[in-house]
Amino acid sequence: MEKFRPVPFSDVELTDGFWKKRALINEEVTIYSVRDRFRDTGRFEAFKFNWTEGSDIPKPHIFWDSDVAKWMESVAFILAKKDVPELRGTVEELISLMEKNQKDDGYFNIAHTVVFPEMRFKNRDNHELYCLGHFIEAAVAWKNATGCDRLIKIVDKYIDLVIRVFCEEKSAEFTTPGHEEIELALIKLFRLTGEEKYLRLAMFFLDERGKKQEYMPDWCNASYNQSHLPVRQQTEAFGHAVRACYLYSAMADAAKETGDEELLSACKAILSDIVNKKMYITGGIGSSRHGEAFTVPYDLQSDTAYAETCASIALMMFADRMKDIELNSEYADIVEREIYNGILSGVSLDGKAFFYENPLEINLSDRTRHTSMSREPENLPITRRQEVFGCSCCPPNITRFFASIGDKIFSTGENSLIVHQFVPCEAKVGDIRIKLDTAYPSDGRIRINIRNAKGEMLFVRIPGWCREYTCSEAFVVSGGYIKVSVTSDDFDLTVDLDMTPSYYISSASVRATAGKAAVMAGPVVYCFESVYNKELRHYSLRLDMKNIPTAEYDERFGCNILKVKAYKIKENGSLYLTPDKLQEEETGITLIPYFGFANGEESDMAVWLNIR
Amino acid sequence: MEKFRPVPFSDVELTDGFWKKRALINEEVTIYSVRDRFRDTGRFEAFKFNWTEGSDIPKPHIFWDSDVAKWMESVAFILAKKDVPELRGTVEELISLMEKNQKDDGYFNIAHTVVFPEMRFKNRDNHELYCLGHFIEAAVAWKNATGCDRLIKIVDKYIDLVIRVFCEEKSAEFTTPGHEEIELALIKLFRLTGEEKYLRLAMFFLDERGKKQEYMPDWCNASYNQSHLPVRQQTEAFGHAVRACYLYSAMADAAKETGDEELLSACKAILSDIVNKKMYITGGIGSSRHGEAFTVPYDLQSDTAYAETCASIALMMFADRMKDIELNSEYADIVEREIYNGILSGVSLDGKAFFYENPLEINLSDRTRHTSMSREPENLPITRRQEVFGCSCCPPNITRFFASIGDKIFSTGENSLIVHQFVPCEAKVGDIRIKLDTAYPSDGRIRINIRNAKGEMLFVRIPGWCREYTCSEAFVVSGGYIKVSVTSDDFDLTVDLDMTPSYYISSASVRATAGKAAVMAGPVVYCFESVYNKELRHYSLRLDMKNIPTAEYDERFGCNILKVKAYKIKENGSLYLTPDKLQEEETGITLIPYFGFANGEESDMAVWLNIR
Repeated sequence: MEKFRPVPFSDVELTDGFWKKRALINEEVTIYSVRDRFRDTGRFEAFKFNWTEGSDIPKPHIFWDSDVAKWMESVAFILAKKDVPELRGTVEELISLMEKNQKDDGYFNIAHTVVFPEMRFKNRDNHELYCLGHFIEAAVAWKNATGCDRLIKIVDKYIDLVIRVFCEEKSAEFTTPGHEEIELALIKLFRLTGEEKYLRLAMFFLDERGKKQEYMPDWCNASYNQSHLPVRQQTEAFGHAVRACYLYSAMADAAKETGDEELLSACKAILSDIVNKKMYITGGIGSSRHGEAFTVPYDLQSDTAYAETCASIALMMFADRMKDIELNSEYADIVEREIYNGILSGVSLDGKAFFYENPLEINLSDRTRHTSMSREPENLPITRRQEVFGCSCCPPNITRFFASIGDKIFSTGENSLIVHQFVPCEAKVGDIRIKLDTAYPSDGRIRINIRNAKGEMLFVRIPGWCREYTCSEAFVVSGGYIKVSVTSDDFDLTVDLDMTPSYYISSASVRATAGKAAVMAGPVVYCFESVYNKELRHYSLRLDMKNIPTAEYDERFGCNILKVKAYKIKENGSLYLTPDKLQEEETGITLIPYFGFANGEESDMAVWLNIR
Repeated sequence: MEKFRPVPFSDVELTDGFWKKRALINEEVTIYSVRDRFRDTGRFEAFKFNWTEGSDIPKPHIFWDSDVAKWMESVAFILAKKDVPELRGTVEELISLMEKNQKDDGYFNIAHTVVFPEMRFKNRDNHELYCLGHFIEAAVAWKNATGCDRLIKIVDKYIDLVIRVFCEEKSAEFTTPGHEEIELALIKLFRLTGEEKYLRLAMFFLDERGKKQEYMPDWCNASYNQSHLPVRQQTEAFGHAVRACYLYSAMADAAKETGDEELLSACKAILSDIVNKKMYITGGIGSSRHGEAFTVPYDLQSDTAYAETCASIALMMFADRMKDIELNSEYADIVEREIYNGILSGVSLDGKAFFYENPLEINLSDRTRHTSMSREPENLPITRRQEVFGCSCCPPNITRFFASIGDKIFSTGENSLIVHQFVPCEAKVGDIRIKLDTAYPSDGRIRINIRNAKGEMLFVRIPGWCREYTCSEAFVVSGGYIKVSVTSDDFDLTVDLDMTPSYYISSASVRATAGKAAVMAGPVVYCFESVYNKELRHYSLRLDMKNIPTAEYDERFGCNILKVKAYKIKENGSLYLTPDKLQEEETGITLIPYFGFANGEESDMAVWLNIR
């Protein structure tokens, strides 16, 4: 059912603007910062396979291979654009160590070789196939970037072992991975190489999943890793949110490759369940710390929101795949919500530190005093980004995201060029040249110049949040996209999206945010942070939804901040008062982009504010 | 500084009305139900002192003496009005057992005799003096009711021991009680007997408290039992709410008896701290399960509200004492808030079952499914009243409250008769006869007839919640009371209080309820309970504070329920919508008195509702 193909980031040059700035920080700061922390914590050293019991080398953890693999993939994405010998050298060293330490039978896993070799393919929850998946993705990226297939050879040999052990001998103590990821990686490798065995193995893992009871840790049930039902029968998002969305991404890939309508309809049902019942306004998913998991519909508590950065990345990946299966702007809308909010909040503005959880409200006082909340501070999300975590999956997921953001902008297919995201850039698709110019998300004017494409159709997404827009050419709307014919070989189109800030209320089924409002301007969710609103407490304010915030460009965030009137209830000394005794004073407040919170002094923060 | 004296309940006969009905249930049902559960659990049997290690008799607990003492006191209050041989017989049997088992040196404590005799006066937190305090209160009540001083003799002998051990020999391993209560009991006994030694001992415990570091359990600090500062220096309510308000009650008693202005000003500061910063709208105090304690100002979370029934009783006791020190209607307002809400919710309408915690919101689904709330269901208040608890302090506190409610209605002094609470009754004060007639709290007309009181001043409280009222005679307002001269020996006064239901909002400092409203009609706090509002979820509704609820008398509750329009946000399938897409439908909802919640089918409940 292949309809569309993304234009790869390697064919897209970002030009000045919001994303170029962030991508530069990524390749100039973040990639090194993550490398340094990985080095400090022994993650690179581990590739020497020289840990022994009692040695003073840090003990390799089962996640470490994947952390480094994602960093290698990020480097590959950077190298695809320009050579950086220092980074290239490090990856080449790592590849050499992998070649040296790969077992003769193809097996490669650090912890399962040096720490507990007896556990090879024994514990479904031990992430061996997950780690392989990330090496496969790194191998594809490395091949694409450098033309070198050393890493491809390593993973190919390992995959052959996996095929033998899992599909032929069935000698592993589990059938499908406890942490999905390898499925989407195998399809990526299949797409690169055309080798059917990779697709067959991916389909094997997808087809077998949930067919029979497999090992689960004591504290959870089979839905934790989406093994409660065969995947084609799944209609709701359950369990660990990252595992879930990596699986759903692979299901979308498989549907696209195989034309499997059942898989596609499962993907659609699940995505609808997520977006309409289980997603924060920031795109955050997996509201519970317990299992880093989806919970019940509408359970979207702000201050305990887990909303892992990787989960937002994974949902973006899922939606981004769906956008190339059918023309429906809702998919790219999800991608947009994630990239400007739930993912972007995962990294500091200086590019050095990361959030694993992304809460929608912080009340510092909850952490320092005895209150009635029955929430132990250690169960609340942290309030400051860190440079590295014990399980440091998010930082290298962020680096690979920024280094390949160009992937998300355009698709082609069926004589069409589709503009999904509004990122200033120049791209090529065969002979076609595209130039996209915009100050988005600070401004809604999108100017597109397309050359050598006469006769093609040009599609431009109308974001779901956009209530008014104009287009410089005659158009029809199809699947939520403006559709115009490219009538000349040097064709200009200007689309103006009304970016007036808007209030949002949540469904009445969301207990946590009922009676409150959030503010978005374009795709950007805003928040109150006390560092920008000294002397004010977010919960003491009430917004009037008739007051439209005004936007002001702010260099710190690379986009607009908002100024809006709020009403502060005056204290009269009493705890309870009748409305006739209510006295308010008007006060101006500043709302900053949610992605930019926690970059100043430690602060209270809230996305949802009371209304009057 | 004695100004006023309460007219004792023994001189007040309740006539038909809200409280008579509840008092009858108390003396016909509750007193027996508590007795039966105490019997089942071995609390009476324990008075035989025949527990031994390995015996099949339940092991006496350190609280048990006080549980039974409060039940004995309750029986005494009932017997003060009419003899009930069955109840009298049980108490007499208990007194005989106490006489038999009291140690020669006066000591009487079941657990510390049969379970761990070596612990006598060793552990400050072991409640020995607390138990004695309740025996003292029972002894005073028993003497008042029956004229018999057997129990007085027992406690007198024990008190002599306490004076010797604590004041003279100082041989106990602590100086002041870990759980206050004996202080107020001693002053009560002093008032009955005139024996200065009781007052001196009370003052000793008050004066020594907080002067030096005493034993504290590991998990708390000295403010847990109000030992962080000498009592005269305390200005804020801290720690275990019941202990705190028993202490503050004793401080008020002591201030009244001794004219100690420092104590009085501490009482005022603390009471203001409670009422203006730490009290639920229901009167509930002690918002945290952890330590059953006060926390920081404005920490008034609805669904985790601990708000122990005994704490409401204790705050009522404190405020009720303050009302007789100075004429200020705010004190009796607190009493009123407690008796119609925080205390009354502690017992089921049928009189058989009790709440220990009194939450202001229940969401049943939080208890049965995995959500993001980070609240373990076992840390949430229970949703159904129980007949008995392991620590069953609240049930006999309820029985003694109902049996002596007549105490709270009138005070006399300075040629004045003061009407604090509006309870239909007939009372005598010397030759004066008072008749109070009202359908309160369903109706605001208060009719008072007073005979043989020409020349006295009559004061009638204007409740703090009341914004409009009329009075049939010329009056001035003094200390929040209508003040009229009694101009004839058969004097009638009618006061009409406007009982129109009203919305309340909380101080903007209360994060939990900011943006919400509660409804009260007169002194009664109302709540939404889903059993009366099928198919509706409280958080999906929005109230319009311009809609005034209409009242309808409801026999089940013995007072009005309210009907009001609410607005239900229609679901449109999306999680987030702009206000222009908001569609509402009007729906009628029923609000019931908060005290009556959890008397039907298990339900969601909320005092605070969203507003539009």
